[in-house]
Amino acid sequence: MRAPPRARPVALNLEPRRERDAPALYRQIFDATRGAVLTGELAAGDRLPPERDLANRLGVNRTTVIRAYSDLATAGVVEARPGRGTLVRAPTPATRDQARSAAVTSIGARDQGPAWLIGLPPLGRANLGPDAGLLSDLAGTSGRPGLISFALGTPSPDVVPRQRLQEELVAALDECGAAGLGYGPVEGLPTLKATIAGRLAQRRVIASPEQVLVVSGATQGIALIAQSLIEPGDEVAVESPTYIGALQTFAAAGARLIGVPVDGKGVRVDLLESVLSRRRIRLLFLQPTHHNPTGTTVPPERREQLLAPSWRYGVPIVEDDAYGELWHEPPDPFPLKASDRHELVIHLSTFSKTVAPGLRVGYVAGPAALVRRLALAKQFSDLNTSALSQLALARFLAAGEYERHLHLVRAIYALRWATMLAALSGLANIDVSPHSKGGFYLWCRLDGALNARQIVAAAARRGVTLIAGEAFFPPGSGAPGDSHRWIRLSFSSASPEAIVEGIARLAVVLRRQPISIPASQIEGTQPLV
Amino acid sequence: MRAPPRARPVALNLEPRRERDAPALYRQIFDATRGAVLTGELAAGDRLPPERDLANRLGVNRTTVIRAYSDLATAGVVEARPGRGTLVRAPTPATRDQARSAAVTSIGARDQGPAWLIGLPPLGRANLGPDAGLLSDLAGTSGRPGLISFALGTPSPDVVPRQRLQEELVAALDECGAAGLGYGPVEGLPTLKATIAGRLAQRRVIASPEQVLVVSGATQGIALIAQSLIEPGDEVAVESPTYIGALQTFAAAGARLIGVPVDGKGVRVDLLESVLSRRRIRLLFLQPTHHNPTGTTVPPERREQLLAPSWRYGVPIVEDDAYGELWHEPPDPFPLKASDRHELVIHLSTFSKTVAPGLRVGYVAGPAALVRRLALAKQFSDLNTSALSQLALARFLAAGEYERHLHLVRAIYALRWATMLAALSGLANIDVSPHSKGGFYLWCRLDGALNARQIVAAAARRGVTLIAGEAFFPPGSGAPGDSHRWIRLSFSSASPEAIVEGIARLAVVLRRQPISIPASQIEGTQPLV
Repeated sequence: MRAPPRARPVALNLEPRRERDAPALYRQIFDATRGAVLTGELAAGDRLPPERDLANRLGVNRTTVIRAYSDLATAGVVEARPGRGTLVRAPTPATRDQARSAAVTSIGARDQGPAWLIGLPPLGRANLGPDAGLLSDLAGTSGRPGLISFALGTPSPDVVPRQRLQEELVAALDECGAAGLGYGPVEGLPTLKATIAGRLAQRRVIASPEQVLVVSGATQGIALIAQSLIEPGDEVAVESPTYIGALQTFAAAGARLIGVPVDGKGVRVDLLESVLSRRRIRLLFLQPTHHNPTGTTVPPERREQLLAPSWRYGVPIVEDDAYGELWHEPPDPFPLKASDRHELVIHLSTFSKTVAPGLRVGYVAGPAALVRRLALAKQFSDLNTSALSQLALARFLAAGEYERHLHLVRAIYALRWATMLAALSGLANIDVSPHSKGGFYLWCRLDGALNARQIVAAAARRGVTLIAGEAFFPPGSGAPGDSHRWIRLSFSSASPEAIVEGIARLAVVLRRQPISIPASQIEGTQPLV
Repeated sequence: MRAPPRARPVALNLEPRRERDAPALYRQIFDATRGAVLTGELAAGDRLPPERDLANRLGVNRTTVIRAYSDLATAGVVEARPGRGTLVRAPTPATRDQARSAAVTSIGARDQGPAWLIGLPPLGRANLGPDAGLLSDLAGTSGRPGLISFALGTPSPDVVPRQRLQEELVAALDECGAAGLGYGPVEGLPTLKATIAGRLAQRRVIASPEQVLVVSGATQGIALIAQSLIEPGDEVAVESPTYIGALQTFAAAGARLIGVPVDGKGVRVDLLESVLSRRRIRLLFLQPTHHNPTGTTVPPERREQLLAPSWRYGVPIVEDDAYGELWHEPPDPFPLKASDRHELVIHLSTFSKTVAPGLRVGYVAGPAALVRRLALAKQFSDLNTSALSQLALARFLAAGEYERHLHLVRAIYALRWATMLAALSGLANIDVSPHSKGGFYLWCRLDGALNARQIVAAAARRGVTLIAGEAFFPPGSGAPGDSHRWIRLSFSSASPEAIVEGIARLAVVLRRQPISIPASQIEGTQPLV
């Protein structure tokens, strides 16, 4: 024990934060003191200021300081000594560790939470990059007034059959009573599974109801497939570019993503074959129809070519068919699964794009043994998908409403697509990939002097949102040299008038944007689509 | 090339299966032939029977054989030679591998699916044991006529406020329009998060809306916590016994589960302390209130004791409070989170037990930094929870209906609890753990001569379902010697009349069950609760 005890003011950098979202004041004092013990500013035997003095100096209530000191005593950082005040204790190894972590969270730093949250690896050890929260951020922008969104991949509210779904919901609950609000089978309601199987048969996909698994949206389908078929470190081949959410969900499951370039007819089979022969790919994730973001559809002759290496190397294909039924020009392409004679294709789709995202209903169709395995993973993930949504959707599908609705929305999206294409055709410094015949998106390459992320930021300031193409390329693999020049424009959620206005705003941005990329960086680019 | 080509009948063991769920006949021929190539029954150069001959012998359509042969040719197993028929090809290394796997799936074996499904490890490499599909099987039994379920942990349909939820649903959709059917924020609707935060404050849990994450049921909460805080191989300490779904979801995430015994006051703090000091526990999963399956509630004095080692070793506690508001006898216990001054407790709850499982809405309340991390994991899992359910629930909560509903269901469950206790009191060979004052379950120990799994099977034959207690113990860790003697009885989903009838059926089973366990196995048992 050192004597005489020193008496220094605690935590010189303690400037209480009083914003609404700041930690409680007692907590700030606690953190600052514990942090000071770690850094050595305060040593064992040091005396904390008397409660009243510190309260006065900080301009806080005395009870606030009392609580902080009490917590510090409970935590073993200080001890109250009769007649001597509150003294810093010699840290035990455990509290020193905690203090070290706690220092990171001390006042001034962003709220990083309690010590036990420090030092955790990224989810699934994946390098999710700067766009990790992109889809979440996008969901938050929905409906902001004045904003024109070319970013959201969602049906606009005026296209969602709200009234009709509401009627089906009420009718379903009247019919099923409270059973419609109970736990349902993990695999999905039999009535919906049978309806989905029937609908698939119309598209030449043969699947019995037991080969169908209802999931809470296509994202859950990808997550369950990843959990069931992939172990951390396994390689998954994807189109480059591809759907951001698939990249993220596979990465979070620990997959290593190998990008295979696409051309105007979808994924390049020659390069896919090469990847399969050289690497140990466990799974292919493809969007053969109305690919997101490029809009390409694999033509019939290439579909057979696509299945051959998958069969030869025994690697299953996940076919994400989210946009498969949303074409702007006939003929309706059948799913890749319709050509699958060897149980190679796991068909995945959703009603989020065709009916309403809020239902959170999608499905997987594949071998019954796979469906059993996925159902187990689903049981461990969320037990089952909302029976309410399933009931409403089953009625909507069975009544023939779905077909009528598809006719309607195809016409609406075809108009928006044509409107956006026409509006863009007047712009000199942007090229539109010409292959989109369906889906929600146009994939565009900017003039070599323009940087997509800068354009996206500038457009947002003018009330137009879009997505920089880099987010769609698997990190570190297969991104072409011009990946920073691409943008994705969605025409699904804006009216034709809003599309014209939004492209006009974008045109201003494109004209005004200074040239910002050194010429050295734009050489050696290669056409992607 | 060998000459002359032999001509043996293909696949001697080919007896076409014609059950409804059997693979297509052409597929059976395909599999049998490919399997025979692998086993050596058929060698390169062998000639397959002419299509017509095989069709006659098997009693199938000729086109069926034609399709099978065509597929075999596509797969490189055979080739058609003009004038010589269909000959087996010399297998390439790739097709030999595939044939080896395919043989496993050939006719006679259970449908194990395509070759690429063979050889995968169990989900999360976890040993999920014989009860892996238990919760799924249970969900499937819901509503079977004549069946009395003491197995399901669900509110019975007559307790679910169906009419009221339907009204809130319609009102919500009228108010929000199609926006209520769109993508919502990953974290949950702001209105519901604020309502949950307000409700938590009434129970002395201080959480801002940004510290609340809406999840698709408590199971998803557990899954997200496991994905976010646990890496494969990490140790998670749980009560032994505990909720089956938690055991399974943590195991599927790769966690190693360490069981800590419970007594009449919940988890034993002395043993917990010992486990924490000896092992590297990353997370505690506890149900401090109305524990499933034992019904115990940790009393106030032990709650403080419980938090101390968690603080000392820097290990967060997941508090599963699914049954926290469902007590049969006052006083209402506050959540453990209400005593948490150091951000150690992650509070997890659900509206599945209190309102309706079909809503699929639960929530996590914890440090904002954790909520951000969980939200990212949720984004990769299912993007967001049904806005529809959230809207209806937010209205139900805000209107004060929730409080009124809780009053009602507490009275209903108290009556069922008392009815089941009274009915069981007449049985000689079953002891009821006396600690349940809330929740859905009674935890009962059978006479030493009885085996729970046999009783469960015999009861099911008499139309009563219950769960053998072994499923609630973490596999291979901490299960007491008498774990085979426990059963869990749920009184939540049967009327008082059905409870009396069901226990009467169980009484018959218990009286008639022969003594079936060697005395050596029932020695050394220890009281668990």
